[in-house]
Amino acid sequence: MAKLLENIDYPSDLRKLKERDLPVVCTELRELIIREASCNPGHFGASMGVVELTVALHYVYNTPYDQLIWDVGHQAYGHKILTGRRKQFHTNRRYKGLSGFPNRSESEYDAFGVGHSSTSISAALGISVAAGLNGDKDRKVIAIIGDGSMTGGMAFEGLNNAGTTNADLLVVLNDNNMSIDPNVGGISRYLLRMQTSRAYNRIRSGVWQILKHFNRAGKVMQSALRRHQHAVKAMVFNDSNLFEALGFRYFGPVDGHDVVALTKIFHDLKEIPGPKLLHVLTKKGKGFVHAENDATKWHAPGKFNAETGEILSDPNPNPTPPKYQQVFGLTLLDLAKKNPDIVGVTPAMPSGCSMNIMMEAMPSRAFDVGIAEPHAVTFAAGMAVSGKLPFVNIYSSFMQRSYDQVIHDVALQKLNVIFCMDRGGLVGADGATHHGVFDLSYMRNIPNMTVAAPMDEIELRNLMYTAQLANKGPFAIRYPRGNGMHTHWELPYAEIKVGTGRKLREGKEIAIASIGHPGNFVTEAITLLEAEGITPAHYDMRFVKPLDTALLDEIASQYHSLITVEDGVISGGFGSAILEYYASKGRTIHLVRLGVPDRFVEQGTQQELYRECGFDAEGIIRTVKQLKI
Amino acid sequence: MAKLLENIDYPSDLRKLKERDLPVVCTELRELIIREASCNPGHFGASMGVVELTVALHYVYNTPYDQLIWDVGHQAYGHKILTGRRKQFHTNRRYKGLSGFPNRSESEYDAFGVGHSSTSISAALGISVAAGLNGDKDRKVIAIIGDGSMTGGMAFEGLNNAGTTNADLLVVLNDNNMSIDPNVGGISRYLLRMQTSRAYNRIRSGVWQILKHFNRAGKVMQSALRRHQHAVKAMVFNDSNLFEALGFRYFGPVDGHDVVALTKIFHDLKEIPGPKLLHVLTKKGKGFVHAENDATKWHAPGKFNAETGEILSDPNPNPTPPKYQQVFGLTLLDLAKKNPDIVGVTPAMPSGCSMNIMMEAMPSRAFDVGIAEPHAVTFAAGMAVSGKLPFVNIYSSFMQRSYDQVIHDVALQKLNVIFCMDRGGLVGADGATHHGVFDLSYMRNIPNMTVAAPMDEIELRNLMYTAQLANKGPFAIRYPRGNGMHTHWELPYAEIKVGTGRKLREGKEIAIASIGHPGNFVTEAITLLEAEGITPAHYDMRFVKPLDTALLDEIASQYHSLITVEDGVISGGFGSAILEYYASKGRTIHLVRLGVPDRFVEQGTQQELYRECGFDAEGIIRTVKQLKI
Repeated sequence: MAKLLENIDYPSDLRKLKERDLPVVCTELRELIIREASCNPGHFGASMGVVELTVALHYVYNTPYDQLIWDVGHQAYGHKILTGRRKQFHTNRRYKGLSGFPNRSESEYDAFGVGHSSTSISAALGISVAAGLNGDKDRKVIAIIGDGSMTGGMAFEGLNNAGTTNADLLVVLNDNNMSIDPNVGGISRYLLRMQTSRAYNRIRSGVWQILKHFNRAGKVMQSALRRHQHAVKAMVFNDSNLFEALGFRYFGPVDGHDVVALTKIFHDLKEIPGPKLLHVLTKKGKGFVHAENDATKWHAPGKFNAETGEILSDPNPNPTPPKYQQVFGLTLLDLAKKNPDIVGVTPAMPSGCSMNIMMEAMPSRAFDVGIAEPHAVTFAAGMAVSGKLPFVNIYSSFMQRSYDQVIHDVALQKLNVIFCMDRGGLVGADGATHHGVFDLSYMRNIPNMTVAAPMDEIELRNLMYTAQLANKGPFAIRYPRGNGMHTHWELPYAEIKVGTGRKLREGKEIAIASIGHPGNFVTEAITLLEAEGITPAHYDMRFVKPLDTALLDEIASQYHSLITVEDGVISGGFGSAILEYYASKGRTIHLVRLGVPDRFVEQGTQQELYRECGFDAEGIIRTVKQLKI
Repeated sequence: MAKLLENIDYPSDLRKLKERDLPVVCTELRELIIREASCNPGHFGASMGVVELTVALHYVYNTPYDQLIWDVGHQAYGHKILTGRRKQFHTNRRYKGLSGFPNRSESEYDAFGVGHSSTSISAALGISVAAGLNGDKDRKVIAIIGDGSMTGGMAFEGLNNAGTTNADLLVVLNDNNMSIDPNVGGISRYLLRMQTSRAYNRIRSGVWQILKHFNRAGKVMQSALRRHQHAVKAMVFNDSNLFEALGFRYFGPVDGHDVVALTKIFHDLKEIPGPKLLHVLTKKGKGFVHAENDATKWHAPGKFNAETGEILSDPNPNPTPPKYQQVFGLTLLDLAKKNPDIVGVTPAMPSGCSMNIMMEAMPSRAFDVGIAEPHAVTFAAGMAVSGKLPFVNIYSSFMQRSYDQVIHDVALQKLNVIFCMDRGGLVGADGATHHGVFDLSYMRNIPNMTVAAPMDEIELRNLMYTAQLANKGPFAIRYPRGNGMHTHWELPYAEIKVGTGRKLREGKEIAIASIGHPGNFVTEAITLLEAEGITPAHYDMRFVKPLDTALLDEIASQYHSLITVEDGVISGGFGSAILEYYASKGRTIHLVRLGVPDRFVEQGTQQELYRECGFDAEGIIRTVKQLKI
């Protein structure tokens, strides 16, 4: 079994096969992805959907000289397996293993590092323009982008720019009508209409009839065909299509699961100069019936039984604390029931952040706006000027996309918008592109902004409750990916006075001030230290802005040293805010900041990464002991 | 003269006039704008182009209940004059005067604060959706957006989201084929084709024939007409137009300088539900022949002679130092001549940042990518992975739009991209939306990033020279709007060792460390202090990251106090970086940070704003004297 794939280490091996062998390669590739993903959790559905596309691209194009840019990169597992990483693939997303996304430092076949959505057209255009300047006349550049990513404005900016160049650029639109959740918005509906439109299909076959013979004809004939093709297309296509309107030549839609047909199409497209778009229809999860039937659940299903399709949960006999995500989702709905002004906004992450709970219960008050973080924030600002109270949930690392809108459209106008920054801190297996480690730093420098982080799910609930009472302008709450601390978390709401922390433990000589979830690491460290007779104090500060200056004054007057602990960059972060406060008051205290150092951190479990960065319980204990000496 | 306008304090006064009077109002409004702008510099061309649109909108719509959102807001002078601010208009853009942009704190007619491009559709959709939730069934929401702003991805995100809602939203596309410079990209070319297409014009008149009678017919007739109109449009328009593809109903193009026709059109459009777009053709600078003939020059011309159109320059008999912008433009071209890898990228600011100098001399190596900051950065990243060395010039406050791309596409991959952040610091008359005060703070927390700021134009040249030698990953250089310090600035290049500052003056007791242009305020302050026998030391640090730790060690060992001076937010900025360094070394020094405080600063001259923030020479002197006591 699996004879063909076993002999494919690189695309050059793939290219030795006959076209008729390619369906077998696809089948074997799918089996390998299922086998690996079932025991090593990762993104599943997207890679299953592009198996034929992946094989056809590497078969036809001269990679790595020709360059493939996978938008987002969830779908690149097949690409990784075919490009020298089959034997390492079991380390996918693991500490010191393969990155879950294409990564330039990992392989020359990864033309551009990805992770966030909608970057591929811009990068591909840059590479293509540079190829022109470098005299690399033959280099082909291909961006493979999903219809979900196409809702991101940056993709449109790339199309708009590319459409007036003569860059030899192919955009493959991988249309499965999904983001992680079902795709939304005008462009999604438009693509669906194109699929079902008889006119398009009729014209399409005409064009393909011509194209089929294109690169097999002689020069003179080619020129004639090109003219003819132009004429046919001009009549019907010209400007009659969103992509043609922007200056791209549009081809499709074609079946993305017919690998032999795809190779022929790519052969033809190689001969057509300038910016062009191929519209390919695929099914997310293709080839694994459970995933085909519920693409959202199978976007990143965790471990599963490869035979039965049963998704396996951890065999933990005790009830586990809920995820912060679940607490957010349930609390939002609960607050929205009590406060009719509350509305919800998510840029294409309803299931990831659990806003789907409110969307189902209150469809008119919760909005999935597509992969469009900048728009999400300003859309919320528009609702806020009209008296609504938006909870905008954006993953911390994606909030970087909305930085200007947070400053310019919300904070400057001091609007009551509540930003829930999910996946703040080190996120684990998604790695360097997805760690939400800059947020405390980039949010706290914005005037009018409140910045808070809960130490557990009870504080998350109370901060959300407080934020909708506050009426003081923008209010950011950041919390991590994953489980909280308590199984009994649905306690009555308690307002938290904005800008107040809490003293969890008195101590001697050394104080520790933490923000957010790492406060639990401090608790753990202190328990262990106390066994050795060392008793640092612990303050859960809760707010990075405004700081609880009364607590800070107490700390400076009672302790000789302060350790700050945060799950974010220490450059400009929580600890720095405290340094600033003490400097402004002319107070001196020996202050050590623990957090994410000034370098990019790769993937691993959260626990592995906390340890690497030195702010897990062990790192805190080590720091306390150094200060004792 | 000007009898009509003198009696229009609010739109309610305008609405008392007959339609036939409106052309006179337009003429008077133009005269007032010319008169005021000629002696009080501001944005000129855009407001001249939308005079008829402004009058027609306020005449037909029930403002302020109906809400107008002016994208960017350069074009809103007529709107301000008609909405209660005619008599204050001479204070436009002045300290404590009117803001140059619509501003919610200034007038209830300013439905949403603007300044940065492409926000209007998102905000309008939010307002419209909120109106629906609030039961304000009759509220009309209108976004007025230029074709330049339409190249920003956020506008597309807004269209994509709005197109599948039933929000009663009108987007007025003000198409003058210009940004500040001529507009670029696929959408611009597409709009031009639509203007000139015979088919469009033919269909258009058919549709208008129907529409003309629309809201004058009875209910039954209306319904029939609506069906008929749908049928006509479906045949030709449906999906055959970029905006229709996204779910908008498209109307136009229409003449934007026929005020009476515009009022009729708006009357008709008020009756048509759902998201719709009216394509209006205007001429930037309309009504002032000089501006019509050179729209880029007359975007914001400075003072001019209202009769002759002569642009007036300051009557300074001495040669003045050049603008930093000019130094950037000339130096970039000079370096590009010597280093064939250098390319230039600007998002629609070639004349503003002076990259037009390189674009004219080397059109194949300098790229205006449209108002598309996120794309600009990732496009540059694509060129960088292919061995090119991009200089990306983005105004500091607009760089906020690219924050994620700088982190995710450039810094994470450690690519050699040089960011020239123009208009860093307090920019003056453009005010709160445009101050580039967050950059030092949000850039220095990014791993792999170098952050520098020149104290004068000679340092700017040398930093640019150094950056293209460095080959060490991303390199950010930020410099202010306006003039430098030296008339003889074109000296031979000198490499600056990355991470080194310079000691400008030895001193006693107190040291001052400055970054960038405010170093000159320090020089001025020290000169004055010396007359009083006070002699602080002065260090021009040049780099925020990496810091010159040797100089900082010297300061801590030789002085009891340090004042840091920066033209940016003190939260997380340059001074905080120094605090962090000293804390990490366990060194203590009394440190006072001068810079922009934690609040939004309004407009004024740069000098007025430096004073207000307390880091002009006078503020520095005051701080030094306080430390002496």
